[in-house]
Amino acid sequence: MKQQLFEKLDYAFEEMLVIRRHLHMHPEVSFKETNTAKYIQDYYANLGIEFTPNVGGNGVVARVKGALPGKTVALRADFDALPIQDEKDVPYKSTVHGVMHACGHDGHTATLLVLGKTLYDMREQLSGEYVLIHQHAEEYAPGGAKPMIEAGCLEGVDAIFGTHLWSLTPSGTIEYRVGPIMAASDRFEITIQGRGGHGASPHQTKDSIVIASQLVTSLQQIVSRRVNPIDSAVVTIGSFVAQNAFNVIADSAKLIGTVRTFNPEVRDLIEKELNRVIQGTCLANDCTYEFSYERGYNAVINHEAETHFLKEVAEQVPGVSEVRETQQQMGGEDFAYYLEKVPGTFFFTGAEPQGEVYPHHHPKFDFDENAMLVAAKTLGAAVLDYQKVE
Amino acid sequence: MKQQLFEKLDYAFEEMLVIRRHLHMHPEVSFKETNTAKYIQDYYANLGIEFTPNVGGNGVVARVKGALPGKTVALRADFDALPIQDEKDVPYKSTVHGVMHACGHDGHTATLLVLGKTLYDMREQLSGEYVLIHQHAEEYAPGGAKPMIEAGCLEGVDAIFGTHLWSLTPSGTIEYRVGPIMAASDRFEITIQGRGGHGASPHQTKDSIVIASQLVTSLQQIVSRRVNPIDSAVVTIGSFVAQNAFNVIADSAKLIGTVRTFNPEVRDLIEKELNRVIQGTCLANDCTYEFSYERGYNAVINHEAETHFLKEVAEQVPGVSEVRETQQQMGGEDFAYYLEKVPGTFFFTGAEPQGEVYPHHHPKFDFDENAMLVAAKTLGAAVLDYQKVE
Amino acid sequence: MKQQLFEKLDYAFEEMLVIRRHLHMHPEVSFKETNTAKYIQDYYANLGIEFTPNVGGNGVVARVKGALPGKTVALRADFDALPIQDEKDVPYKSTVHGVMHACGHDGHTATLLVLGKTLYDMREQLSGEYVLIHQHAEEYAPGGAKPMIEAGCLEGVDAIFGTHLWSLTPSGTIEYRVGPIMAASDRFEITIQGRGGHGASPHQTKDSIVIASQLVTSLQQIVSRRVNPIDSAVVTIGSFVAQNAFNVIADSAKLIGTVRTFNPEVRDLIEKELNRVIQGTCLANDCTYEFSYERGYNAVINHEAETHFLKEVAEQVPGVSEVRETQQQMGGEDFAYYLEKVPGTFFFTGAEPQGEVYPHHHPKFDFDENAMLVAAKTLGAAVLDYQKVE
Amino acid sequence: MKQQLFEKLDYAFEEMLVIRRHLHMHPEVSFKETNTAKYIQDYYANLGIEFTPNVGGNGVVARVKGALPGKTVALRADFDALPIQDEKDVPYKSTVHGVMHACGHDGHTATLLVLGKTLYDMREQLSGEYVLIHQHAEEYAPGGAKPMIEAGCLEGVDAIFGTHLWSLTPSGTIEYRVGPIMAASDRFEITIQGRGGHGASPHQTKDSIVIASQLVTSLQQIVSRRVNPIDSAVVTIGSFVAQNAFNVIADSAKLIGTVRTFNPEVRDLIEKELNRVIQGTCLANDCTYEFSYERGYNAVINHEAETHFLKEVAEQVPGVSEVRETQQQMGGEDFAYYLEKVPGTFFFTGAEPQGEVYPHHHPKFDFDENAMLVAAKTLGAAVLDYQKVE
Repeated sequence: MKQQLFEKLDYAFEEMLVIRRHLHMHPEVSFKETNTAKYIQDYYANLGIEFTPNVGGNGVVARVKGALPGKTVALRADFDALPIQDEKDVPYKSTVHGVMHACGHDGHTATLLVLGKTLYDMREQLSGEYVLIHQHAEEYAPGGAKPMIEAGCLEGVDAIFGTHLWSLTPSGTIEYRVGPIMAASDRFEITIQGRGGHGASPHQTKDSIVIASQLVTSLQQIVSRRVNPIDSAVVTIGSFVAQNAFNVIADSAKLIGTVRTFNPEVRDLIEKELNRVIQGTCLANDCTYEFSYERGYNAVINHEAETHFLKEVAEQVPGVSEVRETQQQMGGEDFAYYLEKVPGTFFFTGAEPQGEVYPHHHPKFDFDENAMLVAAKTLGAAVLDYQKVE
Repeated sequence: MKQQLFEKLDYAFEEMLVIRRHLHMHPEVSFKETNTAKYIQDYYANLGIEFTPNVGGNGVVARVKGALPGKTVALRADFDALPIQDEKDVPYKSTVHGVMHACGHDGHTATLLVLGKTLYDMREQLSGEYVLIHQHAEEYAPGGAKPMIEAGCLEGVDAIFGTHLWSLTPSGTIEYRVGPIMAASDRFEITIQGRGGHGASPHQTKDSIVIASQLVTSLQQIVSRRVNPIDSAVVTIGSFVAQNAFNVIADSAKLIGTVRTFNPEVRDLIEKELNRVIQGTCLANDCTYEFSYERGYNAVINHEAETHFLKEVAEQVPGVSEVRETQQQMGGEDFAYYLEKVPGTFFFTGAEPQGEVYPHHHPKFDFDENAMLVAAKTLGAAVLDYQKVE
Repeated sequence: MKQQLFEKLDYAFEEMLVIRRHLHMHPEVSFKETNTAKYIQDYYANLGIEFTPNVGGNGVVARVKGALPGKTVALRADFDALPIQDEKDVPYKSTVHGVMHACGHDGHTATLLVLGKTLYDMREQLSGEYVLIHQHAEEYAPGGAKPMIEAGCLEGVDAIFGTHLWSLTPSGTIEYRVGPIMAASDRFEITIQGRGGHGASPHQTKDSIVIASQLVTSLQQIVSRRVNPIDSAVVTIGSFVAQNAFNVIADSAKLIGTVRTFNPEVRDLIEKELNRVIQGTCLANDCTYEFSYERGYNAVINHEAETHFLKEVAEQVPGVSEVRETQQQMGGEDFAYYLEKVPGTFFFTGAEPQGEVYPHHHPKFDFDENAMLVAAKTLGAAVLDYQKVE
Repeated sequence: MKQQLFEKLDYAFEEMLVIRRHLHMHPEVSFKETNTAKYIQDYYANLGIEFTPNVGGNGVVARVKGALPGKTVALRADFDALPIQDEKDVPYKSTVHGVMHACGHDGHTATLLVLGKTLYDMREQLSGEYVLIHQHAEEYAPGGAKPMIEAGCLEGVDAIFGTHLWSLTPSGTIEYRVGPIMAASDRFEITIQGRGGHGASPHQTKDSIVIASQLVTSLQQIVSRRVNPIDSAVVTIGSFVAQNAFNVIADSAKLIGTVRTFNPEVRDLIEKELNRVIQGTCLANDCTYEFSYERGYNAVINHEAETHFLKEVAEQVPGVSEVRETQQQMGGEDFAYYLEKVPGTFFFTGAEPQGEVYPHHHPKFDFDENAMLVAAKTLGAAVLDYQKVE
């Protein structure tokens, strides 16, 4: 039966490409992905697959029931894009200025749609039920997972599986890890409120750009000096904006960033240290500030049994040349919340493209589309084999 | 005759207020100030005063000829605004989002329009000719003065006078200075080109925000350590923009700034040091950059005879309580170019408002409107008296 | 037999105290510890225990032969002190200005001397041979372990054990770890060569203190931005010296520091990045530099079998209340080299003092002297039990 | 009579060389210059010139009385050296490790001794009295001038003259200035008290070197952003010491520096800003500090009449090729205190050496010894001519 699934997916690969490239050309940022949701709904509607729209927001949940009794297994794909300008030179380049699928969610969606259709085709011979969770808003906390779970998308689910296409891992490789695999991910904003004025009269002002620059420099010490070197931590300022005329001194400057940790004590420490460094820097510069720190996704903690199960399944999937343990990733994922409710595992599907490789969230990011087929087969094999797990 | 001028100006003060406030509510940034130019043209057209539109751009030059022979004296007022959001709470607050008269050019224009009208009223008894130069684009190099001069606005002019309303000097005070009074003003842009990526994976990126912040910090040393402390110099970064999602590492960051100097050797030194510090910082961070440095206005050098003349005139103007020498100002002014062609002087008219005082280019900048009357009387007295200078 | 050993050690504890406090009062820095070596030699000579002085430097190796055949097991204690001023207020405070046993090597030595004497007392009933390695110069690369090994101290040795008293771990606790337990430890020196001059004339100089300070700040980014957050790494500047009159600008500044890593690729990366940051900073400041990087001790890698053996032994030692796995420590240890030659393990003996606790190398560092007895019993039990290992 | 003085000085030039080089080889730092004082005393004693030793410390004051009545004129030369290691390669290099005449006071002393002797030779034909003030401790506040004045060295003095040999000004040039010629010079000390520890465990410490480095970087903003660019100011850290082993984290770091200003308001501002920046930096880093700020010498303010007099005298001295106004110098000088008591002027005597030129206080500083002859003639001509001033 798995063999049949693999053959059907091979045949449907061309369709995955079409879907992925269409989505790539029409990206939508988190919480605004209404057209993408509509696209998913239409796909299922046209096939006659039962689905629920607007689950916890723009989320879509389809359900394929096998003819035979069995377990209920969920698969999840996220479908939001990022506020990044596409700088690739490809025919399927984003058509939306400043928005781009720079993380591969277009591929996740194409994979799950075609896998869902294939399972539906085979429903007469299948046991159990298959829940296809198309999640909106993975990139931006508070994310779509929480409201979708609250809206009931995990009801009756026995286990869940999810994967991320990964441009930095060779195609054909599946990477798993028991326990923490992705980091807790927080978001903060700092506004430095100096005193603006004429660019030629610094002594009459409090130069917000100089203050904020000094702050960015000082914040490096949190990771380099204050966190135990045995612990992993990241403090990133992703955005620094103080936009003015050249001959003005900035009245204020706004910084936005993220903190990544695995250890909850380190998470607490960094929030405290951010506070202290900001406060001291503003005292030194006689200015004021606003600081907000929002706790984002918790760490993704893979379940041991389901992770070992997935590893063994993957080793028998055609097209998978290597299955290996991965290091912890500092990226955040609201897949964390599904795993707090039901057993399951989250794994990486290698998708390193030909030519120069760019990391996720880079303006030139792309991935090897063949990896979608590997992902579909691995997820498909997992849900079929899971029916046999005792 | 001056007495008559003063009385007419007193009477017309209400009109100045109306004009100034109208302009304040409808600011336009440099080189885009077409409606303001139209307003000026309409004002003169309605009065029947001869003028030339579109002089070297949006500039307007009106000429009032006295009935008697005499010298040709020019007065100049600039009329562009700044890309700053008005944060004052006044009835005449800017109605244009992100644009504001934060330097008093609205007051300069109102002053010159009403003074022009008054001279026109008195033309039958006047000697000589009065050239009213309404200059666009003072705030943004290459400025409006150069093209207006090239277009002939100084033709036949024997001397020129100009003033700046100054919110940091008490109302009733006129400030003059022989020789350099305002600085050479240059503009530079730096783009740090790092390598973007996911905010959780700094090791795969080159963090443009951290690099640019370190650069801003290092640039402070140019003034603190490399310029002779006896010389005056300013290096300001007015704009720092690297706008991204919170969980992204910035691919690039853009800095825009200004350099102010009086000594040409210091001007050369700073350009060279900027180059060096940028180059070294980028080497340390393994990234690339673009750097452009545009020499802006030269220093404003007041002529000795005309400055002493203005000082003596000012001392007899009603409403002027003090005439004093001012320090050099680090601000730039393209009035420099008029003084490279014809004799003249540029002076400050104190305009400190009631309540809290904000420096020029501040989002809450305002000035004492009574100062417009003092400015009009001083400029008017100067051009009348100048007819008597041998 | 172990019981008899424990009782003899209990009885001899007072002697350990005397020895430890004597050594504490007379510390000697690495490679200069001749009086301490003499003290050790005299101790053994007075007891009639055979020893070899000047092994690979100031090292002393004593050998106790049991009456019965068996394995040869080595124990190692280091005996050098640190160039730190003792700031404790205790009767046994260091009498040498600027030198201090701030790492507990005095305790290690007292422990091994008394344990050696005790084994010697029991030699008639013992199997095998006991090699007592008193190592000089652990604190300062290239260290004493390498030359002592080259001089033959491990000849015929079947296994080696060593411990470190640890002020940050509760007394009564033994901590073990299979595999990497202590980091690779490198040493670097940077001399910034600016241009000195009068403190009032910065523009005629290249200010080495400002340059070196900027460098220290920039170096924080190596750990915070360039090393994979999953890997552990430390870059510390331990010494910054540019000593001058207040009114001088520093001609040069000297920095000395250490790098700690577990992953050899990270070790290579950091050396490369240090080079790059120094080079770029000096380019930005138009100065020159000297940079040397000496690879120090490799990581200490504990052998699996001997570590599990030690864990089981420790669980039965009276006075040991807890045996637990420890995290990796960023500190370096040339015990690494013994373990590259023979099987063995290095473990921590908790020695948290009463009152305020200071970390190792702190001017107020001290440890709970009772821990010496726990260490002696654990090491003693290990060497006796090891005779029974097949 | 001046002609005769000039000839005698020409003849005695060789002696000046011998004296200067002897002093250069035997430098003594401020307040410790007892052998130099003895040397001066012996010189006068051997000639039979009356002098007072130990004036206000190590100061020596000799008096030469002319046979005729007249004014009492003082000349001052300082004789202390600096704690700098001589790095020149000359036969008369300093023989004292770490101490050096790096500011030319050896030349000042040689000049005044030989001029004193020459005046003494000519005493039968001279009017008035000549006070030869050999001042100790100019380099180090509170300096020698104040206690020497308090001890009476200016009693009866009508005017005072002093010069500084200047390696950056061509030989043969005399530089004068009315009003402020040298800056107010203050001294400060900052001790950053972090928390020491092991170099591999930054998270258990507060790294004083990183904190102090960040502070040095931040202090650059005082001059670059907080002082009016029209005002001159210098903030220099001359000494940064945190000397430790490479594998230690610094418990504390000590900074010593100087502030130079002309404007008393700027002097106040900088002291306040130093306080603020230190406080904020320590808050950001959760550490403590000690900060002391000692006001040093006031600005040297030359008297108008005496300065013009000196200028005219200098223009007629053989060997003087140019007499010109100088810019203000940021260096401090306790000559300030003499000028607060009696009229006089302080001027520069050009002393640019052959070959590479190093600024004052540089380890390779040297000066053109011929300048001593120019200085002696100018000072000698001044005191003779001053007798004729009405």
